[in-house]
Amino acid sequence: MTKKVSRRAKVSSEKLRRVKIQRHVNRHAEGSALIEQGNTRVLCTASVENRVPEFLAGRGRGWVTAEYAMLPRSTHTRSARDSRRGRPNSRALEISRLIGRSLRCAVDFVRLGEHTIVVDCDVLQADGGTRCASITGGMVALADALGWLVREGKVQEDPVVRFIAAVSVGMVNGRAVLDLCYEEDCSAEVDMNVVMTDDGRYVELQGTAESEPFTDRQLSRLRKLAASGIETLVKKQKTALQKK
Amino acid sequence: MTKKVSRRAKVSSEKLRRVKIQRHVNRHAEGSALIEQGNTRVLCTASVENRVPEFLAGRGRGWVTAEYAMLPRSTHTRSARDSRRGRPNSRALEISRLIGRSLRCAVDFVRLGEHTIVVDCDVLQADGGTRCASITGGMVALADALGWLVREGKVQEDPVVRFIAAVSVGMVNGRAVLDLCYEEDCSAEVDMNVVMTDDGRYVELQGTAESEPFTDRQLSRLRKLAASGIETLVKKQKTALQKK
Amino acid sequence: MTKKVSRRAKVSSEKLRRVKIQRHVNRHAEGSALIEQGNTRVLCTASVENRVPEFLAGRGRGWVTAEYAMLPRSTHTRSARDSRRGRPNSRALEISRLIGRSLRCAVDFVRLGEHTIVVDCDVLQADGGTRCASITGGMVALADALGWLVREGKVQEDPVVRFIAAVSVGMVNGRAVLDLCYEEDCSAEVDMNVVMTDDGRYVELQGTAESEPFTDRQLSRLRKLAASGIETLVKKQKTALQKK
Amino acid sequence: MTKKVSRRAKVSSEKLRRVKIQRHVNRHAEGSALIEQGNTRVLCTASVENRVPEFLAGRGRGWVTAEYAMLPRSTHTRSARDSRRGRPNSRALEISRLIGRSLRCAVDFVRLGEHTIVVDCDVLQADGGTRCASITGGMVALADALGWLVREGKVQEDPVVRFIAAVSVGMVNGRAVLDLCYEEDCSAEVDMNVVMTDDGRYVELQGTAESEPFTDRQLSRLRKLAASGIETLVKKQKTALQKK
Amino acid sequence: MTKKVSRRAKVSSEKLRRVKIQRHVNRHAEGSALIEQGNTRVLCTASVENRVPEFLAGRGRGWVTAEYAMLPRSTHTRSARDSRRGRPNSRALEISRLIGRSLRCAVDFVRLGEHTIVVDCDVLQADGGTRCASITGGMVALADALGWLVREGKVQEDPVVRFIAAVSVGMVNGRAVLDLCYEEDCSAEVDMNVVMTDDGRYVELQGTAESEPFTDRQLSRLRKLAASGIETLVKKQKTALQKK
Amino acid sequence: MTKKVSRRAKVSSEKLRRVKIQRHVNRHAEGSALIEQGNTRVLCTASVENRVPEFLAGRGRGWVTAEYAMLPRSTHTRSARDSRRGRPNSRALEISRLIGRSLRCAVDFVRLGEHTIVVDCDVLQADGGTRCASITGGMVALADALGWLVREGKVQEDPVVRFIAAVSVGMVNGRAVLDLCYEEDCSAEVDMNVVMTDDGRYVELQGTAESEPFTDRQLSRLRKLAASGIETLVKKQKTALQKK
Repeated sequence: MTKKVSRRAKVSSEKLRRVKIQRHVNRHAEGSALIEQGNTRVLCTASVENRVPEFLAGRGRGWVTAEYAMLPRSTHTRSARDSRRGRPNSRALEISRLIGRSLRCAVDFVRLGEHTIVVDCDVLQADGGTRCASITGGMVALADALGWLVREGKVQEDPVVRFIAAVSVGMVNGRAVLDLCYEEDCSAEVDMNVVMTDDGRYVELQGTAESEPFTDRQLSRLRKLAASGIETLVKKQKTALQKK
Repeated sequence: MTKKVSRRAKVSSEKLRRVKIQRHVNRHAEGSALIEQGNTRVLCTASVENRVPEFLAGRGRGWVTAEYAMLPRSTHTRSARDSRRGRPNSRALEISRLIGRSLRCAVDFVRLGEHTIVVDCDVLQADGGTRCASITGGMVALADALGWLVREGKVQEDPVVRFIAAVSVGMVNGRAVLDLCYEEDCSAEVDMNVVMTDDGRYVELQGTAESEPFTDRQLSRLRKLAASGIETLVKKQKTALQKK
Repeated sequence: MTKKVSRRAKVSSEKLRRVKIQRHVNRHAEGSALIEQGNTRVLCTASVENRVPEFLAGRGRGWVTAEYAMLPRSTHTRSARDSRRGRPNSRALEISRLIGRSLRCAVDFVRLGEHTIVVDCDVLQADGGTRCASITGGMVALADALGWLVREGKVQEDPVVRFIAAVSVGMVNGRAVLDLCYEEDCSAEVDMNVVMTDDGRYVELQGTAESEPFTDRQLSRLRKLAASGIETLVKKQKTALQKK
Repeated sequence: MTKKVSRRAKVSSEKLRRVKIQRHVNRHAEGSALIEQGNTRVLCTASVENRVPEFLAGRGRGWVTAEYAMLPRSTHTRSARDSRRGRPNSRALEISRLIGRSLRCAVDFVRLGEHTIVVDCDVLQADGGTRCASITGGMVALADALGWLVREGKVQEDPVVRFIAAVSVGMVNGRAVLDLCYEEDCSAEVDMNVVMTDDGRYVELQGTAESEPFTDRQLSRLRKLAASGIETLVKKQKTALQKK
Repeated sequence: MTKKVSRRAKVSSEKLRRVKIQRHVNRHAEGSALIEQGNTRVLCTASVENRVPEFLAGRGRGWVTAEYAMLPRSTHTRSARDSRRGRPNSRALEISRLIGRSLRCAVDFVRLGEHTIVVDCDVLQADGGTRCASITGGMVALADALGWLVREGKVQEDPVVRFIAAVSVGMVNGRAVLDLCYEEDCSAEVDMNVVMTDDGRYVELQGTAESEPFTDRQLSRLRKLAASGIETLVKKQKTALQKK
Repeated sequence: MTKKVSRRAKVSSEKLRRVKIQRHVNRHAEGSALIEQGNTRVLCTASVENRVPEFLAGRGRGWVTAEYAMLPRSTHTRSARDSRRGRPNSRALEISRLIGRSLRCAVDFVRLGEHTIVVDCDVLQADGGTRCASITGGMVALADALGWLVREGKVQEDPVVRFIAAVSVGMVNGRAVLDLCYEEDCSAEVDMNVVMTDDGRYVELQGTAESEPFTDRQLSRLRKLAASGIETLVKKQKTALQKK
């Protein structure tokens, strides 16, 4: 059954929802972060492994990969677990690939050496924007795990070369909206996920016309909105990482 | 890699670890509870479905089932996700069956009517006793979901007929220990999981000799220790459910 | 083993490779097209089914879905078949979802009525740009299948509302390139797939920084190049559909 | 369809059903036994492998593992094969784990050296108590395979350190019953499987309340009944092994 | 490990090995037969189901299908179970299809009415010719199940229209051999499985050149040898069915 | 939906359908052939791999294996892809095994050395006889890949020891027919696939009674028809290989 969930209270459609990033939320993982963005809540852990995938073996370089999944009742109605359905969740695989690709842009693999960092993003509660929150929170967990490698003397120089964060934007009832909640996402004409660096460049840009193709002008409006959101998110990441 | 995790501080080996049960931790689920027992942390959600499994169809009776899983980095070293390994995790399936069987003992299925309650127990962090914590926490989530059905007028009388809780006991270095943490569990000679009702009767009793077969006398000692732990746990459940 | 394959002969990096679209290439399918773009060759069939997916049942509306796959030796080195690997090919699933989403933008589902069109895009030979060629060729097969429905009297009005086509663009050695072959794709700093309508609006825009994040200015350059390519491709589609 | 099967003729509910253990029933296996207990019939083979699982490699120790399965028509109505259902049979996996864990208690792994014994228990005909019969019969097949290793000079000293056997007990219509047949099992209020050593200690104790939680007093009654059954079963095992 | 198994004692290479067919070997199945042919031993059960596959629904006709499998240690060295390997055993599927196709030739589906007979052939011990023994033994189990349907009044007229049996023949060291054991099968130049009716016509003929292509003359020699074996096997089937 | 497909125009039921074999149809594969036989169209590629299966490792010998699959809309009505159905296509596996076994008869594995040739046969359009066309076309692709190995100096002497080809024959309405199209295949009483060498010997012979068992006399008639067809097909293969 579906319980009624009221719409997010948001001051303005051009602002981010409330964002909270909490570190050290898992005592086993080398890095971890719980990110809350509106009612979306994603637990991110970064695990260090002393090996690299086969295609990189013996090249002195590291790797970053990610896995994204939703708990069965993170959503309005319960979804079956992949392990029970007996077939893959292609949406989750696609998002995992996006997160991994994005986070790899933040890391110098030569500095990292032959280590793999696996970033797990498990959605505890979903209310729109889970893939973007996973990237933003995953970046923090990743930075913590890389810091751990440096502190343990396993890596000489911090492999983080830049910060990346992600946000969704979209056209909802003809208006450009930043950081869509589930309800807004459902009624959006255009849905766009933007992953950017802390110096305002693009890492990924994925725009989809849900009902009506979009124009250059709309694209331009959405890009700017995303850039402003990313700027705030990167600040939140850096603030979180300074605490301890 | 494995970070060093220090041993739990426990006043006495015959006492429970610190237990905390928090309700309403998921805005979508009809019932939910986060149980922390020492460093073990399990997120339990109870989801109401308006149908019953095929074998019960048209008999006017309900059903309760459970699914148990561990997040990849809930453990000291990261484990692969089931959905990636492409084969089932037989330990998780076995525990899911135990949880479901145990929780069904708490419910009157005629009162429940043709509804299924799915109790998901996702281990966020593991430090021993995750299956028992899942049962104890799952009971609270289940009770909340059943209460929701009553409040919504979908069920006339509360289907809860008794409370059940679970705890592990074991022989560690020749001593009977209550509520084993991971370290104790690893070195236990005998490992036993006990599920009991609030009136002190057994729902499940699963004892395993890990290294040395055990005697009637040891069994007797362990049973008493478990009973004392269950008594405390049921009180915690009831206290949690009285809050609102 | 890998045979040496020489680089495409292309007059200019700002031009499309040679494009050829051939219809009626499968006597069973209601619509079919073989698209050749440079050395990339994709066989597209559109199959009409007299039913819709469960989530649409009884709503008088139709559906379009797509499946993309590569023959084992369509690539430089042979890849294992999905059915033998026993696990899904997540890249193929992701591309299938993109093709389906894009083609759905071309169709009026109310006009289509309760039919599903399945567009299969099987890559016979790959040399870059297979997902874009699948969309461009799949559009032609889809239009043919929809025309067949009209001719058979199963649908009153042609459900095609617009034409869509797709092309890849990228930054290669600092230069913007249209319609990348495999070799160019491998060395691209930025890789972008653009799906557009015949009136120059966006259906999908997916840009990825392979090695270096990209700027607004680069994005702008790539968008224009893509638009010019799409214009030519739509003409090729319409020319192909006029033959008979 | 289900043929009517008449209830076992049993002198007393506190006695075992007729037990017959036959060795050398498979000319390929190093050890084998066909156990018949009432109408339950399990074919057990013990196969010697010259390697150990990865987690034991290079430690000079051996391993014992077990696999349990039912033939499709071993039961009243035919069940689908696992290989056809495309998903695991979680009950069979759980029982396989129980059998393996139990049999490992009978063996000194240092004496065994780097060999694995795989005990396959295939139920040819089921009438209750198949997991217990698998353990009792599997012990005989295992002992034979270990004896073969000694005779072949591959192992110096017989690795068998104790005998183990298993039996089910239960409360049926308020009466404690030993060695339940299928019909009794179906109507039991409490169902318990007990694995014990030849010196009367517990290896596994698994009690489940099927309909009504059980008391300490009932547990005590059932334990004693099980102990008496195990004593007889171990005698049967030893008699069987002395033949030939 | 592989135990040495001595070669079958056979009077002549042109004779069948010792054949024994035992009925009523499973108390649940409507029909059952244990066939022993030399050291090959196959347990066949025929299960009656009150439904037909979807493609036959509502046509008043029945169906016969078969499933073939080998127990893990039926062979010289232990094989992994399909359910553990996580992928299908294509040899077993191919043999299942052959058995089903062959047995269907023995049955009048209109007389059978809307019932399905599932014939399970589980190889307990293998020494060559398991697929042929499965067909010969499966025919007996099938006839018994069909007889049960008649006796129960669910079917008016016996649906058996003819008897079928199967035997292997081959060229071994240049000599035509009937009913090959495993050792002969391994060294055969030509291997042929022949399924025939009781009036000497072919149902299936599958000849394979293992090392050297074969001539018309050899084919002719093998066909005659097979026909003589089949004649004996059908007599054994009919004798077995007359008992009791 | 199923489009009506008219019956093949064939001069005589004792003649082959129109056969066309085209080489060099894939720029990546070491050998490739597109075979058209009537309306059946199969794309065959032969891929060279610098390794052999594990069971052959270190023995200085090569291997040939084959995989057969049908594109989803190669048939009258669309079939689901294996990778989507989540279970194997047992017909395709069986045919793959037949093709591999047949093609291995054409090759001297000592001459081939430690290389594997994988022959992929993908049916683009089906109208009966796809397995036979796969063998006939696969032989040409295989010969081309082996020639490539010789030209590249990786193999000293051409490993082809003989040519093999395949054709279907059957009894249709009481008449022996060569090279059955789909319509004929559907109504055949007997269906036989014959694989033969260029010197008229048998490699495989698989005859199946679809509705009525067949006699020695019919078998004899069908064998002769097949031999005449094979003779023509081998000529076509050799002609194709002489071009270029």
